[in-house]
Amino acid sequence: MVCQERINYSELKSFSLQLLKKVNACNEQGKIFINALLWSDLVGRSTHGVWRLPAYIKRIEKGLMKCPCKPFFLSENKATAVMDGDQGIGHYVGYSAMSCAIEKARTYGIGAVGVRNSNHFGTGAYYTTLATRQNMIGIALSNSLAKVAPYGGVKAVLGTNPFAFAIPGNNGQGMMFDMATTVMAGSQVMKYAEAGIALPEGVAIDGNGNPIRNASDVNNGVLLPFGGAKGFGISLMIEILSSVLTGANFSTGVNSMFTDTTHPGQNGHLFLAIDIERFIPVDIFIQRAEILFSTIRNSAAENDKVLIPGEIRWHHYRENREKGLLLDKATLKALNTLAENYMLPGIGQSNRQHPVSFRSEKIRTPSLG
Amino acid sequence: MVCQERINYSELKSFSLQLLKKVNACNEQGKIFINALLWSDLVGRSTHGVWRLPAYIKRIEKGLMKCPCKPFFLSENKATAVMDGDQGIGHYVGYSAMSCAIEKARTYGIGAVGVRNSNHFGTGAYYTTLATRQNMIGIALSNSLAKVAPYGGVKAVLGTNPFAFAIPGNNGQGMMFDMATTVMAGSQVMKYAEAGIALPEGVAIDGNGNPIRNASDVNNGVLLPFGGAKGFGISLMIEILSSVLTGANFSTGVNSMFTDTTHPGQNGHLFLAIDIERFIPVDIFIQRAEILFSTIRNSAAENDKVLIPGEIRWHHYRENREKGLLLDKATLKALNTLAENYMLPGIGQSNRQHPVSFRSEKIRTPSLG
Repeated sequence: MVCQERINYSELKSFSLQLLKKVNACNEQGKIFINALLWSDLVGRSTHGVWRLPAYIKRIEKGLMKCPCKPFFLSENKATAVMDGDQGIGHYVGYSAMSCAIEKARTYGIGAVGVRNSNHFGTGAYYTTLATRQNMIGIALSNSLAKVAPYGGVKAVLGTNPFAFAIPGNNGQGMMFDMATTVMAGSQVMKYAEAGIALPEGVAIDGNGNPIRNASDVNNGVLLPFGGAKGFGISLMIEILSSVLTGANFSTGVNSMFTDTTHPGQNGHLFLAIDIERFIPVDIFIQRAEILFSTIRNSAAENDKVLIPGEIRWHHYRENREKGLLLDKATLKALNTLAENYMLPGIGQSNRQHPVSFRSEKIRTPSLG
Repeated sequence: MVCQERINYSELKSFSLQLLKKVNACNEQGKIFINALLWSDLVGRSTHGVWRLPAYIKRIEKGLMKCPCKPFFLSENKATAVMDGDQGIGHYVGYSAMSCAIEKARTYGIGAVGVRNSNHFGTGAYYTTLATRQNMIGIALSNSLAKVAPYGGVKAVLGTNPFAFAIPGNNGQGMMFDMATTVMAGSQVMKYAEAGIALPEGVAIDGNGNPIRNASDVNNGVLLPFGGAKGFGISLMIEILSSVLTGANFSTGVNSMFTDTTHPGQNGHLFLAIDIERFIPVDIFIQRAEILFSTIRNSAAENDKVLIPGEIRWHHYRENREKGLLLDKATLKALNTLAENYMLPGIGQSNRQHPVSFRSEKIRTPSLG
């Protein structure tokens, strides 16, 4: 069982920005980073949320993630561009690149922006929602640290390579998916390891192709692509589009944000935005999508339920925005240890004795997210 | 065991065009159709090859697939367009739309062309190779007859929705995949039914969610998406991009090319072309892809082999182009029955008594394929 506590969104944001200030990263880029990071917690994807902040702070401090960084265009031409991320925080680089893709889609109907020299960008879905807010379809692809074997292989040569896709919907909360192209996401495996729960079969294998059930052993083995050969094909497509095409490092050339403490990640991404209005009026598009979703929901067996991708995420979003973000005790402890090291007030119930002194520090809320 | 016979490519093409002539469809569009149809057999994807010709001929004769059709643009604006396929043969409509996407990518770096009012377009990979021949990345998506349940559902509300992706490679034969987003393609299930082989578990379920093992019973049940919830997400994305976005019919609005003899298919497609040169020089791209593929191949266990998607297809292509296309006896029989009905000479060994009279009819070979 994992113990969790709800933390108010604004409070957690202020707390995170205070930490960034301590490593000289509480600038516009840092604020965009924190928005993206906390968005993951908001939608209930805590594996990519604030529990990663200590690792990010460490990398920023070591100069392995620049904040601010100075991304620049290696090439830019009508509907496409290639951006060098200047080893910035992946979230900021991703935000900039998707913003550029959106601008291009506004002009040309579709925009594609590739990125090299970036870092782990967190939750791909965040970038797709930048597009959906502009009535566009968003796609975000990234390669990542190689820990996946191809279909039929036993060595780690591909990342968990996330595939995120989203469309606008009513109340700004449309269909959205964001999947690791493995049976289980790497971050999920870490959570299994922390909780000491056995992995289901088919998630990971060792160098001889035998199943790994102990999540802590996955580091000595490999994860498997979802859906066998088909999932491998999609993972490979993502590796190609996000790195072979963009000039980013690929396969074993991508570095871990946790275990490699001397090199930047060198991840690559590809962002696509499609302006719906060029194809069909947006309101008609949303209506048609709703009809499709309702047909799909009605395909459930009696007394059963079919979920549209994103439904649970948006449910979490509304709930967490209102009631506070759910953080587990281990995350809270790590954040408070970090705060203590920087002589900052902590966060959460165990720190309620200092609410006034903490709240007295006013931080301007960035306009994003 | 399936008995097969090799038929010379040019001979089969001439034979097919003769048949088209009998239904007044041996025009430029018909030739493009036959090129695309036979390409499927060339790459060993016979489920989408010439064995479907009798069904196509029937639909052309009934006016359910127009040949010639007059596709037109409902909207066209810089890098995007929406085409009305005018109920043409899907292969010709797809060819036209991908050609348009390629032209747009040449100008803008990326091109996206949506299609409504089309028919089953055969093998998506064919269209992606039109892009790769121009040093572009090609993506072809289509919806199809609803026979797939969503993850957690039991009714047919999605098509097998193929996802085709290809990149240029050495000798024009680069990495390429073309997957039904189901555990098994519908055409493959038909082949299981014909051969009377039991389906593996996890391929199809009945209305109560119980597995179907007899392939002939799949018509009373539903196919399952590959990779569970993740494959469902990808299938749904394809349904949205190819139909909700393009204005095409979707879900149960798509008609069968085999069992519905009164309505056109009303399929929708989306074609994307990405001009590699805007991102990275094409030769460098191909080199980088080769390095990645070689890393992936080397990830196999000792004495084992990992295949790059497309390898087997291109192997078949080279072999079948040289030695002739492999047709099974049932296909040959169906084709010869059709020829007989139209008082045309047959094809294959049982018809070798008329080679001269058959060959004396000269047909101009179209410049494509």
